[in-house]
Amino acid sequence: MRELERDSSTDPPACRRVAIIGRGRLGNALAEALTGPRFEVIGPLGRDWAPCNADAVLLCVPDSEIAFAASAIEPGPLVGHCSGATGLSALAPHEAFSMHPLMTVTERGARFDGAGAAVAGGTPRALRLATELALAVGLRPVEIADHDRAAYHAAASIASNFLVTLEAAAERLAATAGVNRELLVALVRATIDNWASLGPEQALTGPVVRGDTATVARQRAAVAERAPELLSLFDALTDATRSLASEKVLA
Amino acid sequence: MRELERDSSTDPPACRRVAIIGRGRLGNALAEALTGPRFEVIGPLGRDWAPCNADAVLLCVPDSEIAFAASAIEPGPLVGHCSGATGLSALAPHEAFSMHPLMTVTERGARFDGAGAAVAGGTPRALRLATELALAVGLRPVEIADHDRAAYHAAASIASNFLVTLEAAAERLAATAGVNRELLVALVRATIDNWASLGPEQALTGPVVRGDTATVARQRAAVAERAPELLSLFDALTDATRSLASEKVLA
Repeated sequence: MRELERDSSTDPPACRRVAIIGRGRLGNALAEALTGPRFEVIGPLGRDWAPCNADAVLLCVPDSEIAFAASAIEPGPLVGHCSGATGLSALAPHEAFSMHPLMTVTERGARFDGAGAAVAGGTPRALRLATELALAVGLRPVEIADHDRAAYHAAASIASNFLVTLEAAAERLAATAGVNRELLVALVRATIDNWASLGPEQALTGPVVRGDTATVARQRAAVAERAPELLSLFDALTDATRSLASEKVLA
Repeated sequence: MRELERDSSTDPPACRRVAIIGRGRLGNALAEALTGPRFEVIGPLGRDWAPCNADAVLLCVPDSEIAFAASAIEPGPLVGHCSGATGLSALAPHEAFSMHPLMTVTERGARFDGAGAAVAGGTPRALRLATELALAVGLRPVEIADHDRAAYHAAASIASNFLVTLEAAAERLAATAGVNRELLVALVRATIDNWASLGPEQALTGPVVRGDTATVARQRAAVAERAPELLSLFDALTDATRSLASEKVLA
C-alpha cells in the first residue's frame, strides 16, 4: 500500500473551484470539511443545479445515478464521484476522478481526519486532484484500481456495516439476560484496541480459541432458544473464528 | 438491568483474604488489579497450591476444571469461579459465588475499569462478596441468574470474539486490494462510536441499508473470487444486515 502525498511540483497550486452535487449526508459532510486555501466549494447543490464556472464537479449521488448525472454535465470540468465500488467509466466522456472516503457517514456527519480514501484518476491531473481533495479534508489517499474496487468496498462493508449488525445481535441476546447494551460498549472498545494494536490472532480470546467446545455448544443452544433468527449467523461466525484460531495456533 | 452497589451496611468491611487459584491470564490480571484496603490477595497460586488461611478462594481455571478444583478445597472458605457460562452448582458443596468480568483478557492483560461483571452468589453473603470483588477492580457488577448465563456469555462472545473474526475477514479482503489494516482502524473506531452513541439502527450505513443490491452483488462476487472461504459468512452477515435495515426503516 502506498499512501499518496501532495505533489510538491504543484505547490502552491491554483485555487480550484469545486462544485459538489448531492445534498445527501456525504455531499454535506464533504462541503463542510473542504475548507482551506486550495479549494473553493460551490454547493452542495441539488439535482437541479445550474451549470457554474467550476474547475471540477464532484458527484455525491447514489451509485445508480452517477452515469446519468455525469452525462448531464457540459464537457469542460473534471468530473468525479465518491463511490467506493464504482469505476471511472461511469463518468465518461469526462476527464474522470474518484475519491471515496473509507469512513461511515451518519446523519450526524463523518470523522474524516486520519481515515483512508480510495482515489483514482483517468489522467495524472485527475488523480492529483482526487489526492488533493482527500488530503484537504484530512483523509489518507490510496490509489485503488478499478478491478480492486469491489473487493475494497466489500472489505469496508464487512469492517463497518457488518460490525453494526454484529453488535446489534450481541445487544439483542444480552437483553434476554437482562444486560443493557451500555455494558457491552467497554468490552467492544477494548476488543477493538486489542485488534488494532495486537492484530487478530493475538486479540482473539474466548471459548472457540480455547477449544472449549462444551461452552460453545451451550452458547449455541441459548441462541437457538432465545434468538433463533441469529443462529445461522452464529454458526458462520463460529466456523470463521475456528479458522482464525487455527491460524493463531500455527502463528 | 440493575447494577449492584456496595452494601453500606457492611462498611467498613473487614479485610478479607482471597486466594486466587490459576496462573493464567485472568488469574494474573485479577491478582494485579485487586488492590486496596478491602482485600488481601494470596497468589495467583498454581494448581499445586497448598491450603492457606483464606476467607475466600477464587478459581481462575478453565471451565472444565472448576468442579474438580472445587472438590479439592477443604470446606470453610467461600469458593468462587470466574466463568461466564458456568453456574454455581459446579462449586458444590461450598458456599459459592461467581464473578465474571465482561472483558477480554489478552497476553497484555485486561482493562477492567468501567466494564461490566456478571455476579452470582448462593447466599446473600456470597453475592455480596462477588459484588465487592467486582467493585474493587473497577467493574460494574450485574447479577446474572444461572439460567441466563449461556445467553449472557454468547452475547459476550458475539460482541468481542466474533468482532475480531469479522475484522480479520475485512483485513484479508482489503489486503487483496492493496489496503493495509491500519486504514481500517479509523473506520472501525468511528463505527463503534456511532454504534455506542446512536444505537445500531442509526449507526448502520452502506449498500445493504441503502437497498443498493447491485453493489452488494458486486461485493459478493469479489468475496467469491478472492476469499471464497468467507462467502458463507458474508451471506449470513448480509442477511442479518438486511433484517436490521428493515428495523431501521420501521423505527
